Amino acid sequence: MNGKIALEEHFNLPEFSNELPQYVNPEMMREVSRRLLEVSTERLGEMDATGIDYSLLSLTAPGVQAETDPRRAVTRARRVNDELATIVAAHPTRYGGFATLPMQDPAAAVAELERCVTQLGFHGVMLNGFTNIGDADTGWYYDHERFLPFWERVEALGVPVYLHPRDPLLGNQGIYEGHPELFGAVWSFTVETATHALRLMTSGLFDRFPRLTVILGHLGETLPFNMWRIDHRAAAMGDLIKFKKPLTHYLLDNFYVTTSGNFHTQTLNATLAEMGVDRVLFSSDYPYESMREAADWFDNAAINHNDRVKIGHTNARRLFPGLPERIGRSAHTARV
Amino acid sequence: MNGKIALEEHFNLPEFSNELPQYVNPEMMREVSRRLLEVSTERLGEMDATGIDYSLLSLTAPGVQAETDPRRAVTRARRVNDELATIVAAHPTRYGGFATLPMQDPAAAVAELERCVTQLGFHGVMLNGFTNIGDADTGWYYDHERFLPFWERVEALGVPVYLHPRDPLLGNQGIYEGHPELFGAVWSFTVETATHALRLMTSGLFDRFPRLTVILGHLGETLPFNMWRIDHRAAAMGDLIKFKKPLTHYLLDNFYVTTSGNFHTQTLNATLAEMGVDRVLFSSDYPYESMREAADWFDNAAINHNDRVKIGHTNARRLFPGLPERIGRSAHTARV
Amino acid sequence: MNGKIALEEHFNLPEFSNELPQYVNPEMMREVSRRLLEVSTERLGEMDATGIDYSLLSLTAPGVQAETDPRRAVTRARRVNDELATIVAAHPTRYGGFATLPMQDPAAAVAELERCVTQLGFHGVMLNGFTNIGDADTGWYYDHERFLPFWERVEALGVPVYLHPRDPLLGNQGIYEGHPELFGAVWSFTVETATHALRLMTSGLFDRFPRLTVILGHLGETLPFNMWRIDHRAAAMGDLIKFKKPLTHYLLDNFYVTTSGNFHTQTLNATLAEMGVDRVLFSSDYPYESMREAADWFDNAAINHNDRVKIGHTNARRLFPGLPERIGRSAHTARV
Amino acid sequence: MNGKIALEEHFNLPEFSNELPQYVNPEMMREVSRRLLEVSTERLGEMDATGIDYSLLSLTAPGVQAETDPRRAVTRARRVNDELATIVAAHPTRYGGFATLPMQDPAAAVAELERCVTQLGFHGVMLNGFTNIGDADTGWYYDHERFLPFWERVEALGVPVYLHPRDPLLGNQGIYEGHPELFGAVWSFTVETATHALRLMTSGLFDRFPRLTVILGHLGETLPFNMWRIDHRAAAMGDLIKFKKPLTHYLLDNFYVTTSGNFHTQTLNATLAEMGVDRVLFSSDYPYESMREAADWFDNAAINHNDRVKIGHTNARRLFPGLPERIGRSAHTARV
Ligand SMILES: [Zn+2]
Ligand SMILES: [Zn+2]
Ligand SMILES: [Zn+2]
Ligand SMILES: [Zn+2]
Repeated sequence: MNGKIALEEHFNLPEFSNELPQYVNPEMMREVSRRLLEVSTERLGEMDATGIDYSLLSLTAPGVQAETDPRRAVTRARRVNDELATIVAAHPTRYGGFATLPMQDPAAAVAELERCVTQLGFHGVMLNGFTNIGDADTGWYYDHERFLPFWERVEALGVPVYLHPRDPLLGNQGIYEGHPELFGAVWSFTVETATHALRLMTSGLFDRFPRLTVILGHLGETLPFNMWRIDHRAAAMGDLIKFKKPLTHYLLDNFYVTTSGNFHTQTLNATLAEMGVDRVLFSSDYPYESMREAADWFDNAAINHNDRVKIGHTNARRLFPGLPERIGRSAHTARV
Repeated sequence: MNGKIALEEHFNLPEFSNELPQYVNPEMMREVSRRLLEVSTERLGEMDATGIDYSLLSLTAPGVQAETDPRRAVTRARRVNDELATIVAAHPTRYGGFATLPMQDPAAAVAELERCVTQLGFHGVMLNGFTNIGDADTGWYYDHERFLPFWERVEALGVPVYLHPRDPLLGNQGIYEGHPELFGAVWSFTVETATHALRLMTSGLFDRFPRLTVILGHLGETLPFNMWRIDHRAAAMGDLIKFKKPLTHYLLDNFYVTTSGNFHTQTLNATLAEMGVDRVLFSSDYPYESMREAADWFDNAAINHNDRVKIGHTNARRLFPGLPERIGRSAHTARV
Repeated sequence: MNGKIALEEHFNLPEFSNELPQYVNPEMMREVSRRLLEVSTERLGEMDATGIDYSLLSLTAPGVQAETDPRRAVTRARRVNDELATIVAAHPTRYGGFATLPMQDPAAAVAELERCVTQLGFHGVMLNGFTNIGDADTGWYYDHERFLPFWERVEALGVPVYLHPRDPLLGNQGIYEGHPELFGAVWSFTVETATHALRLMTSGLFDRFPRLTVILGHLGETLPFNMWRIDHRAAAMGDLIKFKKPLTHYLLDNFYVTTSGNFHTQTLNATLAEMGVDRVLFSSDYPYESMREAADWFDNAAINHNDRVKIGHTNARRLFPGLPERIGRSAHTARV
Repeated sequence: MNGKIALEEHFNLPEFSNELPQYVNPEMMREVSRRLLEVSTERLGEMDATGIDYSLLSLTAPGVQAETDPRRAVTRARRVNDELATIVAAHPTRYGGFATLPMQDPAAAVAELERCVTQLGFHGVMLNGFTNIGDADTGWYYDHERFLPFWERVEALGVPVYLHPRDPLLGNQGIYEGHPELFGAVWSFTVETATHALRLMTSGLFDRFPRLTVILGHLGETLPFNMWRIDHRAAAMGDLIKFKKPLTHYLLDNFYVTTSGNFHTQTLNATLAEMGVDRVLFSSDYPYESMREAADWFDNAAINHNDRVKIGHTNARRLFPGLPERIGRSAHTARV
């Protein structure tokens, strides 16, 4: 299917290259590192070959979220966003941007958010999981009240926040001891991100800012499957409950999910059954995943054409009203 | 539907009553504590009212797995099993037993397993998550080589092992800080148990003992939803991979899941789509859940009758060949 | 769920009462006949009790389509529409109208269509199957070129046409010989209506008028299930093919289906999988069906809330832009 | 997937070649006619290439069912069965047989059935729709009491009957007037066969012979989709009802369906949801369909491996206990 819009597509700056996780096999990571830095012919060629007209680019995880010093985080985030603005300016009908934010300094994050959306024309925010603060063993999750001004501004600007995986804090990795094969995208990413999303829900964040939109990758990090049970058991938690609606309501009202890295039709069907087709968006997770594998699967998955069109691009159009009207390889030529 | 067999049905001994988790609301826990000790008229009445002919009983979590002293664990496990054998003997057409094992002492666990199956007539093993050892902050997972003789004996005896949730070790609870509402059955049980099951798979356990059967509750603790992604990403882990087959093969060959505490048709459908109907078994998770809610849902869920019969009892018959031929309230009277 | 809009809700005029099909049991038909004539307290009470805010009323089948004399058909259709306009005027926030048309006289049908939509404010057309012409054994299907001006006007007015079942012509009933139990809503309705819809598709009608919308009841009269096979085999028909797109495209672009009389979640799921949620609309088929059964099923069916809202009313709002803004029992009082 | 068993695989004898339906395009029919006569290298090569180890062969429709003279029908059926026995004998690990029966003479049909099963080793019966009698415009359906001895013998022999499509009697083709593109496998086959199957159900046949098994091709000819509605409306038919159980019970207890000619995952999923995986069998419908298309679809369809194995061969093994233990290309060599 042509005309697809992809949301979880990563790039990197050379200065972050040596900060990428090292547990996966080195050969693959060398190739990923290289591709993360390439945003021109090769990437555009992959997009052309796979019917992806437009990619929303974001700094790869953990990126600035792993910076322990708030001042450096601020500086680096600005630099990343400026670089991304340059990349987008070079290919305005093919690339859009997600802002990188220095959440280590919430006030600075708000200011940078404002700048990214209103001046750089970015379409949302990419948060690569919790943010470190002070040292590598300390992290801040975004349900904390220090981030309320951030979320308030996000809601006011009307842009979505993509909550991307990162690996758990060292202090939370005990269960993986002796099992490095379960780190990262295999499993710990999923647990970490699903739990972070649940923290946002149970904190009452979406009661306070009901128009917030959070995007999860990987078809929702298992939450569509288990949301009923979570709701059902939460009902027994009595005084511990600080939120106002069944948690499923937040999943259905405040969340979108993408297909990034979860190219499995049964899982897509389960997600559609739980969330409805308007909440699902195509993405590949390039270059950790292959655009070709993503598109081959998606274009041929056993779903109906009406759903494919929505997931492929019309849902993204609704979620990101600021996308350029004409996108894709031939966008510079006339279209009827 | 009459004739149902339920597998994740818990009881307790008074001596464990003060060891139950305390984070859920006290009123509910008082009622649960009371019902855990009742295995006669009230429970049988609930079973009669809901069409559950037969319940496989197990000591409630964390039970003996939370014992830090191996010798006490051995003693307590024997006492639990003897008590359970007495309960079963009083109602042989209504109750069967899952063995409680002192995994703190692997050799003793093997001996007790043998006794439970060959002398007490139990139908399998209930492991309430990892086992503590030495202190409350230290736990052993069952993928460790110290448990190979245990698994070997399990396979030889041909009985399944039910891997039941428990809360994570204190040292692994960091991500829940400030969020006690996410503990237990709401979410941390799910993460803990799914991760434990994945450790078993990636350890190569099922390559070594291909006829092992592990049962997971709660429709598989999210694994059916995410298994493709886990497999897909594991393929990039290179030298870290110690297992021989795609992990999905183990899920489909070596695992069963039950409906305990996950009474949601979309989730059931997702599980059926991923695992096939022969791998799914009815259960309620009484008294943490209500048999009535479980049965009302299951008996009326939008699945076909052929599937309902399999999930309701014929799959259990195949998995537990030693169940009494005639079960249920009227089992003492003649049936054609 | 409150706020539902229902589309296949029938009424009758006393003069048609003795023309209702007689094969179903007499007691039931007496009650149906009575309810068809009641459009006030009892019907509104059922709607209130079941959360149906608004019903689009239509003359029950076969109605004017069974009239063999074109002139009488014209007269009767006008009378039916005038009566319906009176009913709607009495309850403008609860009822809307589908036009009855004298298809025996295509030019008159166009004129009456125009009058119904522009003067009476009706929201679409209800065609009760083929129309008789001359005698009871002769029928006209709507793929004939004599109806092209009709379809042209329908497209221009932007209103949908509901193709409702009727029983096959006597000459086409041979396969039911000795099996009156298969007539009507049991089976022959389904075959007749699905085949009629296929005739429309293969005639090229939707190539000529690509913005036409046809509504089928009963979750699509089996077409969602078999559309792939129909398309697949049609591809082997060579010169017989007069249409331009795969037939599935017409189903997805030019058809909507309603839940009338098919209150089965597996069938709904199959329809959603084939057509997408935007193409499915709630309906009951009162008084042949019970609003209570329809609503009890729909409100509790194992679908997500986002889908339920779309099927329940937002899809109808999009399809019928002329519906009154405020509907339902309390529509006369202020709503925020 | 290797090891597949296919059930709706057709052959022909030269003498029937000029009796094949003529409405499909001549070029395709020439090729089909040729392939129907080939049961050696080419067909076995297709089977090898597609992982089909074993094909149950049957005379192509309408075959002997179109014979108007009972005596000729008897003679021809014997000849067909003898020829088929010869084919099977030449490749006993690759082919099995379905009996062709002269239903024009019910007593002779019983005798030939007996001969085919007990002497020729056939595994069931293929009925190509109703049987003509006397002339081409007269047909007998198998719910008539004249066939009770036939069904009694079928049940006693424990073999299934495959009810294959044929086109409707001329007298029942009125609705297709001007629409030859809807004949045959496009649509009229489906209607004809579904209606015939419903006649069997409503006749009370399965109450009288509850162990009968009927197989339908094409994923059940739409019945899985609409069975609930059929049951639901039949409940209003009062005195017309001569059967004892909800019709869905017969579908689930007495019917199997195959994937022949319906290679669509959504339709397969709908069928699984309604009937359960144990009731679905792989088939291609060669040479009207391509084994390659059938197998490419089936082997890669988004279903789990446990279900694929059942549909692919284990269900067939259970349904046809007399299949040779070792089948497939390498069956003559040792297998572990
Ligand atoms: Zn990513
Ligand atoms: Zn439990
Ligand atoms: Zn109706
Ligand atoms: Zn065939």
